Amino acid sequence: MKSRLKPYPSLSLFASILVLATITAHAQGDPLASWNDSAAKTAIVSFVEKVTTSGSRDFVPAPERIAVFDNDGTLWSEQPMYFQAFFIFDRIKALASQHPEWKNREPFASVLKGDVKSALAGGEKALMEMAMATHAGMTTDEFEQIVKDWIATARHPKSGKLYTEMVFQPMLELLAYLRANEFKTFIVSGGGIEFMRPWAKRIYGIPPEQVVGSSIKTKYEVRDGKPVLVRLPELNFIDDKVGKPVGINSHIGRRPIMAFGNSDGDFQMLEWTTTGDGARFGLIVHHTDAEREFAYDRESHIGQLARGLDEGPKRGWTIVSMKDDWKVIYPK
Amino acid sequence: MKSRLKPYPSLSLFASILVLATITAHAQGDPLASWNDSAAKTAIVSFVEKVTTSGSRDFVPAPERIAVFDNDGTLWSEQPMYFQAFFIFDRIKALASQHPEWKNREPFASVLKGDVKSALAGGEKALMEMAMATHAGMTTDEFEQIVKDWIATARHPKSGKLYTEMVFQPMLELLAYLRANEFKTFIVSGGGIEFMRPWAKRIYGIPPEQVVGSSIKTKYEVRDGKPVLVRLPELNFIDDKVGKPVGINSHIGRRPIMAFGNSDGDFQMLEWTTTGDGARFGLIVHHTDAEREFAYDRESHIGQLARGLDEGPKRGWTIVSMKDDWKVIYPK
Repeated sequence: MKSRLKPYPSLSLFASILVLATITAHAQGDPLASWNDSAAKTAIVSFVEKVTTSGSRDFVPAPERIAVFDNDGTLWSEQPMYFQAFFIFDRIKALASQHPEWKNREPFASVLKGDVKSALAGGEKALMEMAMATHAGMTTDEFEQIVKDWIATARHPKSGKLYTEMVFQPMLELLAYLRANEFKTFIVSGGGIEFMRPWAKRIYGIPPEQVVGSSIKTKYEVRDGKPVLVRLPELNFIDDKVGKPVGINSHIGRRPIMAFGNSDGDFQMLEWTTTGDGARFGLIVHHTDAEREFAYDRESHIGQLARGLDEGPKRGWTIVSMKDDWKVIYPK
Repeated sequence: MKSRLKPYPSLSLFASILVLATITAHAQGDPLASWNDSAAKTAIVSFVEKVTTSGSRDFVPAPERIAVFDNDGTLWSEQPMYFQAFFIFDRIKALASQHPEWKNREPFASVLKGDVKSALAGGEKALMEMAMATHAGMTTDEFEQIVKDWIATARHPKSGKLYTEMVFQPMLELLAYLRANEFKTFIVSGGGIEFMRPWAKRIYGIPPEQVVGSSIKTKYEVRDGKPVLVRLPELNFIDDKVGKPVGINSHIGRRPIMAFGNSDGDFQMLEWTTTGDGARFGLIVHHTDAEREFAYDRESHIGQLARGLDEGPKRGWTIVSMKDDWKVIYPK
């Protein structure tokens, strides 16, 4: 047996890599460097420390460290409208030559004229019609490529940035910090699941199987011997409000211990998460920074936040003021 | 910087644990010890080695090493009927006192008389009615507890074993072997997702978020200030046949590189998996062992296997003969 006790060469190499990794992490210093040293940051760090300290009364085994994040307004911006709506409008323009009838049909006609306000005047019904016209009719592989091409080039009308440059640096740090503490991080968003998956790994470090979102139905077909999944213009699931706990149960199958949102669309997700047994954590990102990002809450049509502000503090949820709690908004 | 190069105490400890873990693995010898040294075993090991060998033409990065497993007939037995059907019948008996009307209503009346054949005479419609009557109307937490209590005590009518003792030892070894090679293992079953999740981690090492199955709808409600998810008697999704690639896409969001099934209900899952780009692996467990388990295929009402036998070998799928390829069937 004695000879086996010598570390294998691969093990020594592994140990060296570990040493290097540890040094690197140490050199980087504070894992939440973009957070001011305010109550919000303290609350996050205290919670993570108590659930990860072996022997602590609040210790949670690693497999149960599930953290869920809303996307629009929580991980990236969402004004002046959801970024997926910009995608829809761009797709309508790209597909217009194949749909000459759109020139005379609302809401498409308004989109083609560049009149966003009129295009959205039809409310949810109009938006759904545009979503179906642009998100269905192709295979899942084709749609993935369309999203990848768009997200790599399309720019926000106000900031001129790529949409993926409008993610929140403090939240990127938070995602990494939680994963370093053996949390499994999930997105739970009202946005389209297949709209987020093509870039969520690259931007957030979140793999496709940890993205939960709204969806349309798909159908399995074999075309010339090659199987495909065809996207159908039929709603499957809306992952918003009371739908978020339903989506969490369906995809994750266990109750998260941390939840992060920014609007009343996240209320039930935070409620479901924070009313479970044992240590729980809820956090709302409050958009208070008109200068560096946007300022909105109770009266906003996008990302309305009223109940969360009224009830959140009483429920022990942490309210983050972007203006006061974050040193920077976007990555440099 | 020099002092930082000294390994931290925790790192030394970690390295020691690694050494011990390596020794233990080595001492255990063959990770697929219950598999005979036949073509099936060779095919599995060759595939895993080529996709995990860095620099190999077929190398697959760890996050893309997705392996999907059917459950009934692939990871555990399924005769003389799906084990979940035994659960349904036991639940009907347990709930009978609350449903006096069942005494005179089929298929419930036959179940209560112990006449399984008549109870199942109504086919899928009758089974669905019984499933809804026993799987809906409670919260998800309540249902989880019901499943846990049943699975801990109910025994198979022929073998007298707990159902969880009728899992296949060679497949348990395969699951562990794949995970040791950084595969992420998922169940993709026609069975109920919430029927499998309460014990899949303990028995298979597969956490709830990696279980895909058939489901009913749920509804979020707040009862006396306490949120619950109520299970509704309404079908949500059937994860079988063409539904399996749909379920895989919905839950996992990427195409697996290995798929394991046993019946024609798994055909599309294997087809979807093995027609992707790059190295792919499909395997069918053929129930050929009447003595140690059950022998059935083309004519069986449960787990029918015909197309898989006809087309599988031409498609490069590995066909496992339980009688010839497995040293043991169940764990000792």
